[in-house]
Amino acid sequence: MEKVNLKTQNLKKKLIEIFKKHGLSNDHATISANAIINAELVGAYGHGLSRLKMYCDRISKKLINPKPKIKIKKISQSISHINADNSIGFVAADIAVKKAIQNANKTGIGLVAVKNSGHYGLSGYYAEQAVKKNLIIMIYTNAPPAVAPHGASKSLFGTNPICFGTPTSSKIPFILDTSISKINRGKIRVAARYNQKIPEGVTLDKFGNPTTDPKKALHGVQLPIAGFRGSGLAWMVDILSGVLTGANHAGRVKDPFDDFSGPQNIGHLFITFKTNLFVKNYNNRIKDNIKKVKRLPKIKGVKEIVYPGQNKYKRFKMNSKKEIKLTEVIKKDLELLKN
Amino acid sequence: MEKVNLKTQNLKKKLIEIFKKHGLSNDHATISANAIINAELVGAYGHGLSRLKMYCDRISKKLINPKPKIKIKKISQSISHINADNSIGFVAADIAVKKAIQNANKTGIGLVAVKNSGHYGLSGYYAEQAVKKNLIIMIYTNAPPAVAPHGASKSLFGTNPICFGTPTSSKIPFILDTSISKINRGKIRVAARYNQKIPEGVTLDKFGNPTTDPKKALHGVQLPIAGFRGSGLAWMVDILSGVLTGANHAGRVKDPFDDFSGPQNIGHLFITFKTNLFVKNYNNRIKDNIKKVKRLPKIKGVKEIVYPGQNKYKRFKMNSKKEIKLTEVIKKDLELLKN
Repeated sequence: MEKVNLKTQNLKKKLIEIFKKHGLSNDHATISANAIINAELVGAYGHGLSRLKMYCDRISKKLINPKPKIKIKKISQSISHINADNSIGFVAADIAVKKAIQNANKTGIGLVAVKNSGHYGLSGYYAEQAVKKNLIIMIYTNAPPAVAPHGASKSLFGTNPICFGTPTSSKIPFILDTSISKINRGKIRVAARYNQKIPEGVTLDKFGNPTTDPKKALHGVQLPIAGFRGSGLAWMVDILSGVLTGANHAGRVKDPFDDFSGPQNIGHLFITFKTNLFVKNYNNRIKDNIKKVKRLPKIKGVKEIVYPGQNKYKRFKMNSKKEIKLTEVIKKDLELLKN
Repeated sequence: MEKVNLKTQNLKKKLIEIFKKHGLSNDHATISANAIINAELVGAYGHGLSRLKMYCDRISKKLINPKPKIKIKKISQSISHINADNSIGFVAADIAVKKAIQNANKTGIGLVAVKNSGHYGLSGYYAEQAVKKNLIIMIYTNAPPAVAPHGASKSLFGTNPICFGTPTSSKIPFILDTSISKINRGKIRVAARYNQKIPEGVTLDKFGNPTTDPKKALHGVQLPIAGFRGSGLAWMVDILSGVLTGANHAGRVKDPFDDFSGPQNIGHLFITFKTNLFVKNYNNRIKDNIKKVKRLPKIKGVKEIVYPGQNKYKRFKMNSKKEIKLTEVIKKDLELLKN
C-alpha cells in the first residue's frame, strides 16, 4: 500500500482502530482494513466501506468472533481443512489462500476448504496473492440466498462467484471474478442505501414481478445469468464451497445485514497449482494467448479488447492516487463506530 | 450397455467394425463406439453419429492417428501429463479420466492434463465415470473457434464447455456440462445437415448480422452467454485446457470438419477429488442439498426443479429401450464407411 494517497492511509488507520476497538487483534484488524480499502480502490463499493457497520454490528452481537481460534487441519501435503471459528471472513480467506499457496509450492497443487467463515469481500483480492506467487488459482464461495434456482420462484443460491486467476507475464494479472447473477448483490445494497434505481431485467420483487427498486429487489429474487446454465453454475459453487467443506449450504447461509440469529457459516474452496507443471514456457504461452485475442478485429465503438482484471487494475492505479470520497452515510458510520 | 436395445447393440458392433477397418485397435474402436452411442442415447445428436464420417475422414487423411503411442508422464502421485499422440479424442479422454480417478483414489486429489488430443464428444460422459467411483470431477476442454471474445467481431474461443460432476447418493448423478455459448455448435451442425433453422439471437453471420441460418452461423460467430462474463469463462477454459497443457490455444485448434491442414491438438484438463476429504457425511449433505432445492415453490408451468444431468439420465433410460433412429444421411454414411 506504499503508493497509496496519504488520506487513504489515514482512513485505513481509522479502520484498523475501529476493528481493534471491536476486539480484533492488530493483525486481523489490518487484514480486514486492507481488504475494505482495496474494494474501495478497485471501485467495488458494495464490498467496501458500505459493509463496515455491518461487520461491527455482527462482532458486537457475537456473530463474528473477534478472537477466533482458527484451526488448520492437514489432510495431506496438498490438502488442508480450515475451521475459521466464525472469524471475520477476511481473516479466514487470507489464511486459506496463504495455505493454498504453500501447498501448491510444496506439491504442485493445493486444495484448501474453509468452514465457519463469513463474507470476505472480493474473491479476486485473494486470487491476486496467488497470482503474484506465479500460481493459477480457482476460488469458490457461497453466500446468502439471492438467486432463484431455474424453475423456482424463491431465492436459495447466493450470487456465488466463480473466480479464476493466472499470471500473464505482465504486471496486470488475469483475474476473472464473476458472480452468476445478472447484478451483484453489493451493487443493489449500495443503490438501496443511496436511493438509486437498478437496471431493468436483472431482478424480480417478492411477487415475481420485474423491479428497478433496489429495496424491493433485496426482498425478491436476482436472476441468474443464462437461465439453466447460470443456475447450474450457482449450484456447483454451493456444492463446492458448502456441501463439500462442512459449511452451511442449500440456502442456510445467513444474510449478514438482516439475519442476526447466528453466525453465517459461509464456506470457501481454494484450488491452486503451478503454471509450469506441464509446459516450461507458460509465461510465453499466456502472453501469446492474450496478444492473439487482443489483436482480433473489434466491434464498432470498442477501442480495446480487455481481459478480466485489466479494468479493475486500471481503476486501482487511478484511485490509489486520489482520496477516497466518503459519502455522508459512510461518514456517519465512521463517526458512530469510532466512539 | 447390457440393457440396451438389441438393434442398438448391433449398431454399436457396426461402428466398432468401421473404426477397426480404419485402423483402430479393437479396444480403441470399442471406446469410440461406446461414446458415440452414448451421445445418441442421451439425445446429444451433435456429438453422435453425425460426426462418424468426420472422424473416419480425419483418420484416412492421417490427421487422427489410429495407432497412437499415448504417453502418460507422472508429475507426482496426484498429477499426470498425457501426450495423446493425436489419438481419436475419445481414447485420450478415456485414459485421462481413468488416470484422474486413480490419482484421486491414491492421494485425495487428481490433476490430469492432456495435449495432442481431438474432439472427444461430451465431457459429461467422462464425468460419469468419476462420479460412479464416488469422486467429484471438473473437466475443461477447448475447441475450434466459434465464439467471439467480448468486444471482438471475430470468433476465437471454442464453445469451451465447463463440466462439473458429483455423486448425489442416488443413481442419477449431478452432471453440469454446459458450453459457454448460447447454442451448442453440434446443434448448429445438425441443423445445417438437415436444413433446419436455428433460434434467433444466438448467432451472427460473418458480417455481424443476426442469422437463423445454420450454414451462415457456422461461418459467423456464436454469442457467449452473459457477455463479458461468458467471454471470460470461455477464456478461462482456453487457458486451463490449452495454455497450461501444451495443446493448441488462442484460436489455433482446427475445425475437424473444415480444416484438414493438420491434427487438432485439442487440450483437456481433469480435476478429481474425494467427496469425504472434509466431511464424513457427504452423501447425506448432498442429498439434503438437492432436496432443499427441489422443495422450493415453482414458477408457473414448472412441474419439477431438476438438477443438471437429471433430464439427460431420463433420456438415456428411455432411449436405451428403443432403436436409434437413423436418418437418411447417417444411413448413407454408414453404408459408405463400412465398404
